[in-house]
Amino acid sequence: MHKKHVDPVPVAQALEQLLHHVHIQPRREKIPVDQARERVTAEPVQALISMPAYPAAAMDGIAVKADVTAGATPNHPLRLYKGKDFEYINTGDPMPLDKDSVIMIEHVRTVGEGVVEIQHPASTWKHVRQAGEDIVKGELILPAHHQIRPVDLGALIAGGVQEVTVWTKPKVAVIPTGSELISPDGIPERGEIPEFNGRVFAAYLEEWGAIPDYRGIVPDDPASLREAVESAVEECDLVILNAGSSMGSRDFTPKVLNRMGEVLLHGVAARPGKPVVLASVSGKPVVGLPGYPVSAYLSLEWFIHPIIQHWYGVYSRPRERIVTRLTSPVQGKPGAEDFVRMRIGRIGKEYLSSPLTRRAGVTMSMVRADGLLTIPLEEEGYQAGKRVELELVRSRQEIDSTILFSGSDDVVLPRLDSILRGYKPGLSLSCDWTQGKDGIQALLEGRCHIAGVSLPDSGSWSRIGLDSFQPDTHDLYHVPLFKRTVGWMARSPRLLSGKRGSDLCQSGLRLLNRPSGCSLRAYLDGELQEKEIDPYLVKGYHWTESSHLRGASAVAEGTADVALGLKAAASLFGLAFMPLFDEIYCLYMPFSFADSEPGKHLLEAIRSDSFRAEVDRCPGYTREAPNQGG
Amino acid sequence: MHKKHVDPVPVAQALEQLLHHVHIQPRREKIPVDQARERVTAEPVQALISMPAYPAAAMDGIAVKADVTAGATPNHPLRLYKGKDFEYINTGDPMPLDKDSVIMIEHVRTVGEGVVEIQHPASTWKHVRQAGEDIVKGELILPAHHQIRPVDLGALIAGGVQEVTVWTKPKVAVIPTGSELISPDGIPERGEIPEFNGRVFAAYLEEWGAIPDYRGIVPDDPASLREAVESAVEECDLVILNAGSSMGSRDFTPKVLNRMGEVLLHGVAARPGKPVVLASVSGKPVVGLPGYPVSAYLSLEWFIHPIIQHWYGVYSRPRERIVTRLTSPVQGKPGAEDFVRMRIGRIGKEYLSSPLTRRAGVTMSMVRADGLLTIPLEEEGYQAGKRVELELVRSRQEIDSTILFSGSDDVVLPRLDSILRGYKPGLSLSCDWTQGKDGIQALLEGRCHIAGVSLPDSGSWSRIGLDSFQPDTHDLYHVPLFKRTVGWMARSPRLLSGKRGSDLCQSGLRLLNRPSGCSLRAYLDGELQEKEIDPYLVKGYHWTESSHLRGASAVAEGTADVALGLKAAASLFGLAFMPLFDEIYCLYMPFSFADSEPGKHLLEAIRSDSFRAEVDRCPGYTREAPNQGG
Repeated sequence: MHKKHVDPVPVAQALEQLLHHVHIQPRREKIPVDQARERVTAEPVQALISMPAYPAAAMDGIAVKADVTAGATPNHPLRLYKGKDFEYINTGDPMPLDKDSVIMIEHVRTVGEGVVEIQHPASTWKHVRQAGEDIVKGELILPAHHQIRPVDLGALIAGGVQEVTVWTKPKVAVIPTGSELISPDGIPERGEIPEFNGRVFAAYLEEWGAIPDYRGIVPDDPASLREAVESAVEECDLVILNAGSSMGSRDFTPKVLNRMGEVLLHGVAARPGKPVVLASVSGKPVVGLPGYPVSAYLSLEWFIHPIIQHWYGVYSRPRERIVTRLTSPVQGKPGAEDFVRMRIGRIGKEYLSSPLTRRAGVTMSMVRADGLLTIPLEEEGYQAGKRVELELVRSRQEIDSTILFSGSDDVVLPRLDSILRGYKPGLSLSCDWTQGKDGIQALLEGRCHIAGVSLPDSGSWSRIGLDSFQPDTHDLYHVPLFKRTVGWMARSPRLLSGKRGSDLCQSGLRLLNRPSGCSLRAYLDGELQEKEIDPYLVKGYHWTESSHLRGASAVAEGTADVALGLKAAASLFGLAFMPLFDEIYCLYMPFSFADSEPGKHLLEAIRSDSFRAEVDRCPGYTREAPNQGG
Repeated sequence: MHKKHVDPVPVAQALEQLLHHVHIQPRREKIPVDQARERVTAEPVQALISMPAYPAAAMDGIAVKADVTAGATPNHPLRLYKGKDFEYINTGDPMPLDKDSVIMIEHVRTVGEGVVEIQHPASTWKHVRQAGEDIVKGELILPAHHQIRPVDLGALIAGGVQEVTVWTKPKVAVIPTGSELISPDGIPERGEIPEFNGRVFAAYLEEWGAIPDYRGIVPDDPASLREAVESAVEECDLVILNAGSSMGSRDFTPKVLNRMGEVLLHGVAARPGKPVVLASVSGKPVVGLPGYPVSAYLSLEWFIHPIIQHWYGVYSRPRERIVTRLTSPVQGKPGAEDFVRMRIGRIGKEYLSSPLTRRAGVTMSMVRADGLLTIPLEEEGYQAGKRVELELVRSRQEIDSTILFSGSDDVVLPRLDSILRGYKPGLSLSCDWTQGKDGIQALLEGRCHIAGVSLPDSGSWSRIGLDSFQPDTHDLYHVPLFKRTVGWMARSPRLLSGKRGSDLCQSGLRLLNRPSGCSLRAYLDGELQEKEIDPYLVKGYHWTESSHLRGASAVAEGTADVALGLKAAASLFGLAFMPLFDEIYCLYMPFSFADSEPGKHLLEAIRSDSFRAEVDRCPGYTREAPNQGG
């Protein structure tokens, strides 16, 4: 009834402490063999019968007693009579009890009805499978603590085993807590969040061979929580609470658990994932996991997966590890291990990696991650260029066949990934959104395979007056993908009608700007310069968002009043839109890549009807027909 | 309606031909997200709502409008009033519509009821999660042709997606054929075989994401087969026949398929696995797989798995490959790729491998295999010592933590594996049965970690007169495991009663001998020499079996009349037994291994009550208590 530790300890140590303090008591059950796939044996399994159960022919031919074949030679063939000397036999047939050898049909010459000749004597037990050749009665087919594979089922049935004793599946209670949570199939109102961590936990638990028991959302109050834990501990082998394990005013978990049992640990030295509570209630493990999805899923793997493996006495295969070169620096912070989701790509023979966002709330960073980098407790971080070892969450094969894109944000381009996968299974496209020029830079420095740049079309060109905008793309193959319309967006058409950018900037409205390096930003800068407006006086001038969808979302949510961006994004969020000009979106790649297998498939996918249909479907997009690359 | 190929082609080419000729037409279906784990997306999935759906606090603290906080300094703190200037807010709460910044609670000093002081100005949108920070409406969450993982479910629910469009699971007909087959849960009579390949196929198909449709055993006659294929082609996406695809008198498959559709290929250049039939009936793939289990499972993987991957447009990760050194030669044969099941072990830093039996009927060789060696078409084989690349079927981690045993055959020792797995999850024991001396030789040459030798106990020693029998084990640690009784066995006690070995050898009975190097063999040789009996005149003297269980099985099945071996084996097969002497079974290992972590766990397992109980349970075994190793 006391806290064991005040200072957070690293994950490995926390796990050890948990496993040491709780009682994990798997039970045995007998199940029919045909339900045994993926189950774990609790006892060694022994063959009850032999396979084959009797000596059997291993060839098609005739069964003889070897003794009677003595003396046969090519010059003096021996005559054998059916019924008396031999019987015809097929592979797998049981040997007649008075026969002990098989002569292959190819070595038998039929000389009459039921009469054959052989030219060589047979030797005893030649071409005969002895009883038990495959499996002999009494042989151990499987040891205990073995996860049953399809091929094992064959051996079990062949050995006459119809039931196996396996460990029961642990039943794991999943208790989502939080008054703001609603059922995942509900429609959230402002302030409500659909509960999804619990569903993800349940899916992981199934994958790990446990039975998830999703026990419904518990509101933030100690009495309800206590009641929920009490019944869960009674009915389940392991209890997961999510969340309420941090230090906030509504985080009752540690207090409640301390009253019900023993809190072994509150907080681990890990980022993300720090606010974990490990407790023992009636000897059973009760684990409070943090609420942010990334923290939740990582800590589920750190603490729940090992408990399940411990239950079965079987450890699953660890993830593959590879050495990669960092293309950007990664900072560590003192006092905790850092777990960083990484994008990984293969360029030539080298694996390159770069960190994805480290925010614990961004589920998509877990969806998009190729690997995980662990920065140890004492390490401050790594410089760009450093070689670091990562744990892979996608397979090396998938990473090997991923085309790395870097360049201007777009809403149609990501759909090329699906088309590519359909064209050439295994191949995929991974997009790293940055500015067009940075994309080209990455391409020239060998950090990606292809780059995307959107340039004002020639009509708008002179108006913007940005010749310097054209990236240095000599020696690169390029393909125009489409034209897309950009302009101003706002919640109401009234805000935009009849106004120029300079008007909008002087109206006191809050702007959400494009990052520098974008043609829209350059366009606005040109206009402000022309009107001699100081950008520092424009509200929100320095607030930028590189994602077109997030820009439109900010306007829709009222955090910005006007923003620059794609017509397609404005349209998706139902915003008013004032077009400024069209951009031509081009892909650039080395000629060598365009000629490679993946490059050819990519170009095919781009020219496919499916991709054209995607372009046509998107508001403000038109196909760029005439020029097909060069 | 004609055979495309007469000469067998290699597996890869055969597969290409099959995929080229059949129509694989996956269908789409919409399913609820909570049933979507492991399914494959048929379309890209786009977020329908943003997560968070509104700007939300990223910290516990107070929500303010950044404008009103200007001018606060440590020397001149700014007073804020609840209701007018700020609201208390918890992490995740929606931001009040008129607020745009959060000040962490740690930086707020309460000076009265509803009155606080701050020492620094807040900046706009500080500690606020913007709407869509995790997932923004319109964002692509998943591409098409993506197998859904637990974490993806979180992103889908967070993005407001409640249904996803996935590919249907292909329905695969499994048709076992053969008049000798009976249902797997039946008790076979002589000449009957429980059908188990079909069950193994079904389990693999489930693992690969297909729906197996086990259609029951079809007898060997063309009309039944035709009828079975007809209805299967109508109802399923893919049809598997097993077996009847070789050239025997009852193998109708090719003929029947040729009449119903097009046989694309009969026979592939692979060993095992040659007699495969690939056909297209009504445009659907119909595959006849060979009957021997090893051939059947390998060819299932070669032809059926790729069709399923093709259906989904997703390729599963290939097996890991490692380079190993062969400890014995492996022969190839011209005209076919050879697929050899291999035992792999790690000694120090090196992986060693040796072939398991190559008989296609031995299911246990698939159960026991650690990896597969492919000998290409044109390769004649490899010498011992050669480094070859293998495909792993167990994980590298499992192989790394496997203790390799080599030595005398025994029936209790294999049970140590299960006990060891229970003691130290992950650790296991792999037994390579050979003669005791060969085991010691393997140990001294670094081909195994431990060796097992059974020696006549000191009482029998002088009687057998075999001092040279003692292996050269100086510098090795050894542990006696148990005593075991060996002697003569026969079906009837009448055969044995009052007889000596020399009597049995002169009685015209058929003997099954032990391999040379065993103490029983030496014992018999001593007796024959004493009586001046020429071994060449003893029936069966040169017929040997190293497995005690198979020896007993041969006597039980009547293929031998008398055999030498373990009392335990005789007892298991209900045979009469005449004891000769006791053997002491010892494990040998280098001192360095005994001191290593796995070595210590092994010794603990040997000294455990569980292992003692196994010894006590086995007829003819007694514990060897006094000496506990040295």
